Amino acid sequence: MTHTHPIRRAAIVGGTHGNEWTGVYLAKKYQQYPHLVERSSFKTQVLLGNPKAIAQSKRYIDKDLNRCFNRIDLEKSDASTYEDQQARRLAQELEQVDAIVDLHTTTANMGATLILRDRHPLLLQLAAYLTAQHPDLKVCCSALSQGSGYLSGLRELGMTLEMGAIAQSTLDAALFQTTEKIVASILDGFEALNQGQLQASNSPLTLYQYIGSLDYPRTEQGELRAMIHPKRQNRDYEPMHPGDPIFLTFTGETIPHTSNEIVYPIFINEAAYYEKGMAMGLTEKQQITFGSY
Amino acid sequence: MTHTHPIRRAAIVGGTHGNEWTGVYLAKKYQQYPHLVERSSFKTQVLLGNPKAIAQSKRYIDKDLNRCFNRIDLEKSDASTYEDQQARRLAQELEQVDAIVDLHTTTANMGATLILRDRHPLLLQLAAYLTAQHPDLKVCCSALSQGSGYLSGLRELGMTLEMGAIAQSTLDAALFQTTEKIVASILDGFEALNQGQLQASNSPLTLYQYIGSLDYPRTEQGELRAMIHPKRQNRDYEPMHPGDPIFLTFTGETIPHTSNEIVYPIFINEAAYYEKGMAMGLTEKQQITFGSY
Repeated sequence: MTHTHPIRRAAIVGGTHGNEWTGVYLAKKYQQYPHLVERSSFKTQVLLGNPKAIAQSKRYIDKDLNRCFNRIDLEKSDASTYEDQQARRLAQELEQVDAIVDLHTTTANMGATLILRDRHPLLLQLAAYLTAQHPDLKVCCSALSQGSGYLSGLRELGMTLEMGAIAQSTLDAALFQTTEKIVASILDGFEALNQGQLQASNSPLTLYQYIGSLDYPRTEQGELRAMIHPKRQNRDYEPMHPGDPIFLTFTGETIPHTSNEIVYPIFINEAAYYEKGMAMGLTEKQQITFGSY
Repeated sequence: MTHTHPIRRAAIVGGTHGNEWTGVYLAKKYQQYPHLVERSSFKTQVLLGNPKAIAQSKRYIDKDLNRCFNRIDLEKSDASTYEDQQARRLAQELEQVDAIVDLHTTTANMGATLILRDRHPLLLQLAAYLTAQHPDLKVCCSALSQGSGYLSGLRELGMTLEMGAIAQSTLDAALFQTTEKIVASILDGFEALNQGQLQASNSPLTLYQYIGSLDYPRTEQGELRAMIHPKRQNRDYEPMHPGDPIFLTFTGETIPHTSNEIVYPIFINEAAYYEKGMAMGLTEKQQITFGSY
């Protein structure tokens, strides 16, 4: 993929997690009304990521599908779980695709977030194009693109759209409509890229670079000892300074941020991350300038 | 149970639904610090309703436990599902109890709601006592007390505390602390009742009487055709007038309230009720006066 190599095929995937309904029902809508995702310069494929989990309205059946797309795992001879098998099917279906948009929701109050697979120059340009149209859209970059196992990591132009806050296994009409608008803009962005009209932005792009995560305080047995502090709950993307409260124990004791760094938490109180040992992700806020374009 | 017959034993139950964590962790806290629920005039028992579902962070294993407490079902000779068996164990454990407080959460924006088993005069008096201390507390009455199968229906002084909005399988520290305060007030109310100090309120009690429910518009195959309308989402307890928008289809068409009645919806967009065919519960707003006391 270079600047002169256009996108010939794009894929929109909903329901990689079966209980994140916004993507599920938006993908079903696109399948029913394909003209909504048609653009003149490329083909768009719409897929449901985890049909069995969607049918049961669960995140996954055996294991998290969106951690199964490591090259090494995909090439192993055995695929014993449903998700390992489904990851192979999807990887094969997406082989001819140049760009992937994977639709997710979160119980964290993150608003609309575009998570880029990495800092590929075209992804950064697309992100700048999108934030110009959707000023509230946040842009994150995963540190782990190659090794994360994310579906969006399958292709160079891979991105995940996270929408929140919304409870699992529910729909929210306003959030559904915002998601639909952003997806339309992403497709418009692909079209502009193909037509050589994706202008380099004059203003810098704010990028939240993922740097790690924090788990909840736990007992030796692994039981939760604390909750997100009320002063941190719902404050994704707000700076967390040394000494700021992070957790509140069940008995009312505040646990502060002890690091000397200012960080910008995301995925605060995401329901699916308790089992992953993650109370929040931590990011650094960076400015990306496009002077070199 | 009469006015002169005091509460000798009360039970607090958390985790009747295994993914409603506020009740689960509050019950665990009470088990660890029993003095928090001790009062001089009665014993308090703290139970986890559905341990297996709690361990898996699911609402239930085989079927909704909080629909398994019908007398008829409890007395059937067969109890084939885990929840049928668990319902029997709980019914037996709660046999000597005079009052039940069952702790729940909802993804609906209902704030704090006390759901009374029925209009038992003592329940109404307790509700008035509680709303005097917690002016934001809403009071509902289930139409179906005997036939509902609710755990709280096992005893004359049965009540369910619903707290929302909160996503399943998460904790929210502010909501946790509010729940704890209301439970403390409920226990204080039992104490006042036992000591003959539960004064009849001078001001009328606002009671939302359950009258029925509305399902989502669906296709012939049962698939969702619409979402809660943005103008109705999060507006639990706000009057719904004839012609008010209720649903928005995936293609953007508004579906209005066609009845001639003004109703007060609750449980709007509760995640667990999609499978029950319920987009919202409908209530009538009533004023209860205590002139007769």
